Amino acid sequence: MPEHTAASRLRLSGLCFLLQTLIILLFAVLARYSPGGSPSPCPPQLNCSHRSQDSAFQQPRFQDAHVQVLLSFGLLLALLSRSGPGSVAISILVTAFAIQWAVLIQGFFYFFLNGKISVGAQSMVSADFCTAAVLISSGAVLGRVSPVQMLLLVLLEVPLCTLHEFILLSLMGVRDSGRSLTVHTFGAYFGLMVSRVLYQPHKDRRKREEQRDKGHQTDVFAVVGTIYLWIFWPSFTSSTTAHHDGENWAVLNTYFSLVASTVATFILSPLLYEESTPRMVQIQDATLAGTAVMGMAGEMLVTPFGALIAGFLVGLICPLGFRFFTPVLHSRLKIQDTCGVHNTHGLPGVLGALLGTLLTLLATADTYGYRLELVFPLVAQGSRTVPEQALLQLGALPLTLLLAALGGCLTGAVLKIRVPRCSPDTQYKENAAFREVPEEGSEPSANGKEELGISTLV
Amino acid sequence: MPEHTAASRLRLSGLCFLLQTLIILLFAVLARYSPGGSPSPCPPQLNCSHRSQDSAFQQPRFQDAHVQVLLSFGLLLALLSRSGPGSVAISILVTAFAIQWAVLIQGFFYFFLNGKISVGAQSMVSADFCTAAVLISSGAVLGRVSPVQMLLLVLLEVPLCTLHEFILLSLMGVRDSGRSLTVHTFGAYFGLMVSRVLYQPHKDRRKREEQRDKGHQTDVFAVVGTIYLWIFWPSFTSSTTAHHDGENWAVLNTYFSLVASTVATFILSPLLYEESTPRMVQIQDATLAGTAVMGMAGEMLVTPFGALIAGFLVGLICPLGFRFFTPVLHSRLKIQDTCGVHNTHGLPGVLGALLGTLLTLLATADTYGYRLELVFPLVAQGSRTVPEQALLQLGALPLTLLLAALGGCLTGAVLKIRVPRCSPDTQYKENAAFREVPEEGSEPSANGKEELGISTLV
Amino acid sequence: MPEHTAASRLRLSGLCFLLQTLIILLFAVLARYSPGGSPSPCPPQLNCSHRSQDSAFQQPRFQDAHVQVLLSFGLLLALLSRSGPGSVAISILVTAFAIQWAVLIQGFFYFFLNGKISVGAQSMVSADFCTAAVLISSGAVLGRVSPVQMLLLVLLEVPLCTLHEFILLSLMGVRDSGRSLTVHTFGAYFGLMVSRVLYQPHKDRRKREEQRDKGHQTDVFAVVGTIYLWIFWPSFTSSTTAHHDGENWAVLNTYFSLVASTVATFILSPLLYEESTPRMVQIQDATLAGTAVMGMAGEMLVTPFGALIAGFLVGLICPLGFRFFTPVLHSRLKIQDTCGVHNTHGLPGVLGALLGTLLTLLATADTYGYRLELVFPLVAQGSRTVPEQALLQLGALPLTLLLAALGGCLTGAVLKIRVPRCSPDTQYKENAAFREVPEEGSEPSANGKEELGISTLV
Repeated sequence: MPEHTAASRLRLSGLCFLLQTLIILLFAVLARYSPGGSPSPCPPQLNCSHRSQDSAFQQPRFQDAHVQVLLSFGLLLALLSRSGPGSVAISILVTAFAIQWAVLIQGFFYFFLNGKISVGAQSMVSADFCTAAVLISSGAVLGRVSPVQMLLLVLLEVPLCTLHEFILLSLMGVRDSGRSLTVHTFGAYFGLMVSRVLYQPHKDRRKREEQRDKGHQTDVFAVVGTIYLWIFWPSFTSSTTAHHDGENWAVLNTYFSLVASTVATFILSPLLYEESTPRMVQIQDATLAGTAVMGMAGEMLVTPFGALIAGFLVGLICPLGFRFFTPVLHSRLKIQDTCGVHNTHGLPGVLGALLGTLLTLLATADTYGYRLELVFPLVAQGSRTVPEQALLQLGALPLTLLLAALGGCLTGAVLKIRVPRCSPDTQYKENAAFREVPEEGSEPSANGKEELGISTLV
Repeated sequence: MPEHTAASRLRLSGLCFLLQTLIILLFAVLARYSPGGSPSPCPPQLNCSHRSQDSAFQQPRFQDAHVQVLLSFGLLLALLSRSGPGSVAISILVTAFAIQWAVLIQGFFYFFLNGKISVGAQSMVSADFCTAAVLISSGAVLGRVSPVQMLLLVLLEVPLCTLHEFILLSLMGVRDSGRSLTVHTFGAYFGLMVSRVLYQPHKDRRKREEQRDKGHQTDVFAVVGTIYLWIFWPSFTSSTTAHHDGENWAVLNTYFSLVASTVATFILSPLLYEESTPRMVQIQDATLAGTAVMGMAGEMLVTPFGALIAGFLVGLICPLGFRFFTPVLHSRLKIQDTCGVHNTHGLPGVLGALLGTLLTLLATADTYGYRLELVFPLVAQGSRTVPEQALLQLGALPLTLLLAALGGCLTGAVLKIRVPRCSPDTQYKENAAFREVPEEGSEPSANGKEELGISTLV
Repeated sequence: MPEHTAASRLRLSGLCFLLQTLIILLFAVLARYSPGGSPSPCPPQLNCSHRSQDSAFQQPRFQDAHVQVLLSFGLLLALLSRSGPGSVAISILVTAFAIQWAVLIQGFFYFFLNGKISVGAQSMVSADFCTAAVLISSGAVLGRVSPVQMLLLVLLEVPLCTLHEFILLSLMGVRDSGRSLTVHTFGAYFGLMVSRVLYQPHKDRRKREEQRDKGHQTDVFAVVGTIYLWIFWPSFTSSTTAHHDGENWAVLNTYFSLVASTVATFILSPLLYEESTPRMVQIQDATLAGTAVMGMAGEMLVTPFGALIAGFLVGLICPLGFRFFTPVLHSRLKIQDTCGVHNTHGLPGVLGALLGTLLTLLATADTYGYRLELVFPLVAQGSRTVPEQALLQLGALPLTLLLAALGGCLTGAVLKIRVPRCSPDTQYKENAAFREVPEEGSEPSANGKEELGISTLV
């Protein structure tokens, strides 16, 4: 079916051209640089503290902006180690589109002044948060949808994600500096729901075969990805908190959490699998889970041992999820989860939100001191009591799950309608042709082991 | 011919020893650390704004310096993904020599006080710019010249490059913060001219074979290189602009440009090649081209959609260049271009210079506000009109091409005289021995495809 | 012996659980965040200058903290390129444990107030220094001890390393900003001593075979590791020196040193081995050696050519050590050195300490100016003369060697007692099973060459 293949290629090419032209037109009509002289208004979702609006405190913001846009790339590397270089091009296309689209959409919600969107460093940071959520969602369906479908997913998820973020952070005043809810939980359950709607039983077998072919590069990507996450994620988690001491806490909490979560992997791995040390992808998953759980609670008074305990527990739950829950998800609920985003982002995000609620409930002016104004400005100003804030934090969780599920259903339905007899079949063959050739004659025993590992892992 | 081989090895070893000893002696006689107490004088090629000389603004400069020296390594990674690990050692040798040599040579031009060169963070930054130009030039001839010839190339190009930079930035007062002209255009055309002079028809076939052997590592390097460029290049482009808001614009413009250029690759790749998604090296090339085009214009008022359009166009031109122009370059003009520097640095640099000229012409005090003093200090001070500045910006382009061509001819001639029956033959065999062994028995169909791709790509 | 294997796996799992629970309990009882309002007291081992306690100078400290914790990961990458991905999981486990353990132990020495350890950004930085020393030690025995033994090594080395650091920096007032002595020299000789005590002749042959199997990934890790070290290490070396100009010197000295050391590798490699260009691991070793030698002297008045000469010499000594000294070490002294830490950390550290002593002796108020107070505060305050300071710097070297040797003996003895018929045998087989399958049918000539290279390298 070469005509079909050619048509599918041209369809992607044409859609890219169309969307990029549309985005350029929208930018030409709507977007302007934010005026340099006056500081741009602090958008609520960036949780700017009052102090950060002094000019003396402006500088770290821009510095952070450079660092912060890295978030998506950390996730990208993490995805690559699970899905192989075959889908790397798609992931980069997703990133490139999502950033532009998110700058536009988020501009409407947060930076809309006099009929123009003002674009600045903060737009890029907000857009990157949104892109991270999209990448997590794409991790659930990677390798099972065509590039065209992936673009549609981006097109639909970015507005839904921005709407969700706007409701939570701006309307409800929920604190979520490290984005346990708006990035990790929303992204994961959105993707899982899309995966459920697009469920195709026969795809699974082929994916497993594909997985086996990755060989050499997987470990390299996992090592580079893990080190990248260790280095940059703690400062990412803390970068929306403008004050230095608050930053300090968030960095430390995230470090402690991911350290403990890494050790936990070494405890469970020998019990769950017949290996003495965990594979690199398992360590990377633990790192991701350990940071996701500190998303909401990171800037609060977790205390070092609290962060260690949280990281330790989530580090135990994550491999258990891969071993026992993912197969159930697949066989009972018919949800395939290519990169295991439920275990690395979904569950840890939910646990992080619960932990954040608990810590909000325990917040007092005594223990937080001057920090209270930074972490819970509404409480410090007296317009809200601590239990009210905790209730809102708790209420944000079911709301997130609901919106993610609804959004995922809707998006999945659109993807299903749009490209009914979709191209992944031909897609797959083309991809395989220019990917690395699998080494056919590799050791049978290793293959057997590998297969066993994958049947439980994926 | 083992004697020849041994002699060739010893020649490299001896030359390295000689040059390093010479450099140490020159440093001993000439170089001193810049006195710490008084701030070092602001060299014109760093485009220091007036504000940056306050002590409060000194700090970001040093921070930037750390980041900025990364530029060469980004290019290094980009080279590796095209040329394979066989030439990585040579590239690192080039970097190590070029940095020392450039600190000395640039010291004579910019930091010469009382018979001594004062060395500081700014020297390292300037030297790194020069090293980047040398690395781009080396990309055009990589794999076709011996290490000894490569060292001679460094020895000759560094002074020429510094001279060119001095004429443009200090004497003519041209604005080129992201170095469209002095790094990208000069480096590319210099390297192409050297390649032209050293043209040897029979070398081409062997290089193509060598290219085929790379296999596994290429993709890994391309992925790591692309992510590295996305992360660090935008802040690099902006780092010579000391003011924060100016920095802001340059960062945003570069981001938008490389995002649009990446998407453009996805549009053209399916049309030019029979693949549904581009390879990683193509995406990396688009990233490089997208940043090169924003070199001069980055700090000016491009506006978001202007940056998107520029990146989009250059992202379309770069693959077209690889597909149609590189073969013409080779067959008609007898210029071989190992890493395709003409498409990723040369053409985008020229386009970036034209775009910069256009934007200079459009600059008014109204649209730039207080920024005018930062971007065009001479215009703001009244010593030059806007059309004059634009004329100089435009005139810098043919001057750059002329100097690069002359310098490349001269260098190529010297390389040709110096080592007439040069060692790459033996070089190649030795390299092959300790590189990874190619997998001979790999699938014929994949090989066929690969060959097809390369015959068009290289 | 599957029961033995299962028991060995469970032993690691159980030990991890036990230690992690213990650490959590200790943190719960002892550790608190340092109070945000008042600046935490400056610990002597961080060499805080007086100026750094002004609030204006606080900010760079936190920025540096983020960067500084990267040190361990640079070493990690360097280890990986020598030891292959089989031991990457163990290295990460070592890092995760050592950081937590070092925060606790160092808290007792430096941050103990009112029965509580105050944890902050400085704790993480100090802990990372200690982790780096542990990683260097582990490099000497990597692949020859079981994971359980490795954990015991961490457990014992962290307190000894902290004690050593406390004696040198706090009690004796030795200046060692880049940690030539407390990280490089101590770590290397500690590890070598452990290796000596655990000497088992028959292990060597197998390790050599294992080494040969690494193939593809080694070069990738070495390239990524080298570039990582070039980028981040210079700013690491300078990060404990709070003042900007002092920072400046340390950065420049380290850059010059590693540049010259890299070139030196290109000079010796063709003479020592029959290769025209060095391998990537050799370049990486030179980079490590070039930074280690600038550890103590970096912040002093080395002058550019002094740094070039020091780097050049150490770049010549390091490959000579691999070629001639490591075999002697092995055959005569029965010390195996898996990753060659003696040549890359031990010797350069010792040379760095001698250079630092020499430069201390040459320090005068004239040449240092206001810097004297920053580099040698006790001398500037008049409570110590320059010769006294130099004598203490010199005396620190034999003390370091003595403490490292004693500590290494003790630790080695404990490891030997603890797991007498230790599990590396079974360990090795398991590891091999899930590592990449070696390509058995690779070219014999390449293998022969490889073997030759390794027998001299390792």
